Amino acid sequence: MTSTANPLAPEWLPVPDDANALARAVWPSGATRRDGELVLAGVSATDLVRQYGTPLYVVDEEDARRRAALILDAFRREFGRIGASVSVYYAGKAFLSVGVARWMAELGLNLDVCSDGEFAVALAAGFDPARIGYHGNNKSNAELEAIVDAGVGGLVLDSVYELERVAAIAAERGSRQPVRLRVNSGVHASTHEYLATAREDQKFGIPLADVPAVVAAIRAQPSLEFLGLHSHIGSQIFETGGFEEAAARLLAVQKELLEGGPVPSLNLGGGFGIAYTVADDPAPVGALAAQMAAVVEAECTRLGIPIPNMAIEPGRSIIGPAGVTLYEVGTIKDVRVEREGGAAVRRYVSVDGGMSDNPRPELYGAEYSARIASRVSAEEPVLVRVAGKHCESGDIVVNAEYLPGDIRPGDLLAVPATGAYCWSLASNYNHLGRPPVVAVRDGAARLLVRGESIADLLSRDAEAQPVSEVPA
Amino acid sequence: MTSTANPLAPEWLPVPDDANALARAVWPSGATRRDGELVLAGVSATDLVRQYGTPLYVVDEEDARRRAALILDAFRREFGRIGASVSVYYAGKAFLSVGVARWMAELGLNLDVCSDGEFAVALAAGFDPARIGYHGNNKSNAELEAIVDAGVGGLVLDSVYELERVAAIAAERGSRQPVRLRVNSGVHASTHEYLATAREDQKFGIPLADVPAVVAAIRAQPSLEFLGLHSHIGSQIFETGGFEEAAARLLAVQKELLEGGPVPSLNLGGGFGIAYTVADDPAPVGALAAQMAAVVEAECTRLGIPIPNMAIEPGRSIIGPAGVTLYEVGTIKDVRVEREGGAAVRRYVSVDGGMSDNPRPELYGAEYSARIASRVSAEEPVLVRVAGKHCESGDIVVNAEYLPGDIRPGDLLAVPATGAYCWSLASNYNHLGRPPVVAVRDGAARLLVRGESIADLLSRDAEAQPVSEVPA
Ligand SMILES: Cc1ncc(COP(=O)(O)O)c(C=O)c1O
Ligand SMILES: Cc1ncc(COP(=O)(O)O)c(C=O)c1O
Repeated sequence: MTSTANPLAPEWLPVPDDANALARAVWPSGATRRDGELVLAGVSATDLVRQYGTPLYVVDEEDARRRAALILDAFRREFGRIGASVSVYYAGKAFLSVGVARWMAELGLNLDVCSDGEFAVALAAGFDPARIGYHGNNKSNAELEAIVDAGVGGLVLDSVYELERVAAIAAERGSRQPVRLRVNSGVHASTHEYLATAREDQKFGIPLADVPAVVAAIRAQPSLEFLGLHSHIGSQIFETGGFEEAAARLLAVQKELLEGGPVPSLNLGGGFGIAYTVADDPAPVGALAAQMAAVVEAECTRLGIPIPNMAIEPGRSIIGPAGVTLYEVGTIKDVRVEREGGAAVRRYVSVDGGMSDNPRPELYGAEYSARIASRVSAEEPVLVRVAGKHCESGDIVVNAEYLPGDIRPGDLLAVPATGAYCWSLASNYNHLGRPPVVAVRDGAARLLVRGESIADLLSRDAEAQPVSEVPA
Repeated sequence: MTSTANPLAPEWLPVPDDANALARAVWPSGATRRDGELVLAGVSATDLVRQYGTPLYVVDEEDARRRAALILDAFRREFGRIGASVSVYYAGKAFLSVGVARWMAELGLNLDVCSDGEFAVALAAGFDPARIGYHGNNKSNAELEAIVDAGVGGLVLDSVYELERVAAIAAERGSRQPVRLRVNSGVHASTHEYLATAREDQKFGIPLADVPAVVAAIRAQPSLEFLGLHSHIGSQIFETGGFEEAAARLLAVQKELLEGGPVPSLNLGGGFGIAYTVADDPAPVGALAAQMAAVVEAECTRLGIPIPNMAIEPGRSIIGPAGVTLYEVGTIKDVRVEREGGAAVRRYVSVDGGMSDNPRPELYGAEYSARIASRVSAEEPVLVRVAGKHCESGDIVVNAEYLPGDIRPGDLLAVPATGAYCWSLASNYNHLGRPPVVAVRDGAARLLVRGESIADLLSRDAEAQPVSEVPA
């Protein structure tokens, strides 16, 4: 193909040789084409849409399981070499349903929840509370009571105020609550500002300098059991430098803490980046695990302290690449954009969803990619921007992508890497119902989460007629 | 009071003389204090919370009605002077429930909807379809059929593709569909980029240069009735310059269009700014209406064309200032922030909601204000940042505010100006149920929209046990 780049395209976006190709890095492993059509784990996009409509979230179950197992194996292998055990908590905030919680339980992962709602999903899935880590900067008393009563294995303490309340609650019940202490390490992970959680000017955790005193306070409570420190430096991180710096800072404090008693484990949080577009090049999980193990070993040796057991909390890197959103293409417009060096044309391709099912482009300026799902085309690629159907100009699904020039209304469009933080952040903006979530595996699809109908939306309106009387 | 400013405070935020005061500009007109407590339209915050819990959206019904009536009156008065009638469409995207739709109908406003879901709410409210304007850059065929069948008074055409489909649908039914044409005027309103809808590089409307040809195509369809042009230049706009420029550009085209037939009306959209904090100083609606009428009159005179009837579509300026969100204060942390010129302390006050009930700070960097609702305090004001309870550092409700220094867990906190684009953009992030919406009027509260329980959230999970069996 001889297409030349559109000057409106971002620098990182090459004109593809084949605008139908499914780049390995951004598509789930079960994605392929059959007779031109996109097929996910053996189920064709058109079959999925025939059964469930558009928009539709699809999760490649084997892909999610495989990534979870890969992370678990890699970290166990690398930390096993230095004599440390590893627990991997799946971060439910990325996407949580009863089905997904069960996959993680089956694979031997633990679960990270951060609200009573996520906890309820975990319990509904039959997840063993002893294998749950419970986060949150502002847990209510009701949450703390439920945590203690259920026997949650790791409460992540976020403040002294919480420490005092949970100690009292556990004491009252005569039980002993295992807790980790969240540390605000001050490490700035190189990622989007909203996603960086461990810069000092933020709501989470205890400043490094205060950690010894707070750990002493934990140890002074007979109703609390100290598990160790916790650090989460951010999300969608590509460089291991931030993790290494956080590990070094926490281990330095750990040395001090060891004088007062055991510090069994260290939790370095989640945040491993994934490829949303061909421009993203995340480190393979094996390399990540090896580097983190090397740093922990080196620091512990340098400090002369025992190597702690390890915990991590990945969410996005397990479920993100497993998800694909299917849309139907509607209105298409070529918009002339005046710019230095002459006008250029950007093609706006509108789909039947948008910022309600994926707010990440608007929230974080996140980039995505796309492919026509219902067919292949040999037409020359043109630069498109995929927009949603919402009444807002920031309602962009894919900021920039090259797609075959004959893209037309009625085509199905697939956006990969939408498994994490799309459904979980979804809204009903403009009274659009949220799409269903479907798992595909071995040629079969099954519903994970029902979609919302207009009747569902109206059912919460206190002054609406009963749903059965609402005009269709 | 002698408090000095915290160096972390933004420049626009003064240290208040009284950190309990309810600034007129940002609170609904029914907001006052009784025995120190915040009272909204005669109902105390504690009574509201006792009945409905926290977080809670409260809408001051009289305030919303008053603002709607003020806008209608001001525009009718100012445009009446130049012989033009005015229709005011309430933009339902800001907040729409059956109750609010009925208030607007009672006051003589029209309604702007932009999806089948919003349309269903309008119909459920018994809103006369003839008084509805229907927007959308990507209406489905099903939507277009419903629009024609119901007799929607103003379909806002967004593309030639839509023109052709709706003409065919109306022709098939032997009916005549009134349409406006949305124009991409290229005017950059001075507002946040995501909210600015009429810059040329965006998905909405028809470029100015193409308008004559598209209007000719509309007129050539016997099944369509041409109502006029439509422009919406953005939202939360403080300067009238953008509206004036858009009016001038549209009227210049209008002159050309008049050669081919009548152009009965001109719709200049919504977007009037409101005060979120004391730093915002929106123009009074009377002045806005007078300036817009003056520009329309001057341009029409200059062009030698008749003055068209007018339509506008305000949403935020009607419902935004009428809304207050009530939260309960939980964890409070003083965080030391190193900076040039020495360290400073920012107090993080966490509440029991956050980005799920108000994503605007994270989406747009929107600023809000806050007051303790359950009491007054004479303590010196301290700089606080109000954070939510979500697992995300960007989860900020109020970026910067001075509140009494003895703010403590259990206090109720009220955030004003949350009536628009909060509930409508709300999510279930971290599986938090969305709060109920309650209207207050004459000392009584009534539910507009039910809140969501954890059972509601689980009810869509296809693999959860029936809700009755979910552990509490
Ligand atoms: C404490 C904590 N752990 C884990 C995660 C998961 O991060 P990711 O999905 O990027 O792996 C997050 C995300 O914000 C978090 O806040
Ligand atoms: C076409 C249109 N009309 C009206 C509005 C309402 O704007 P506001 O609520 O700022 O008045 C919007 C908001 O985005 C809009 O897109």
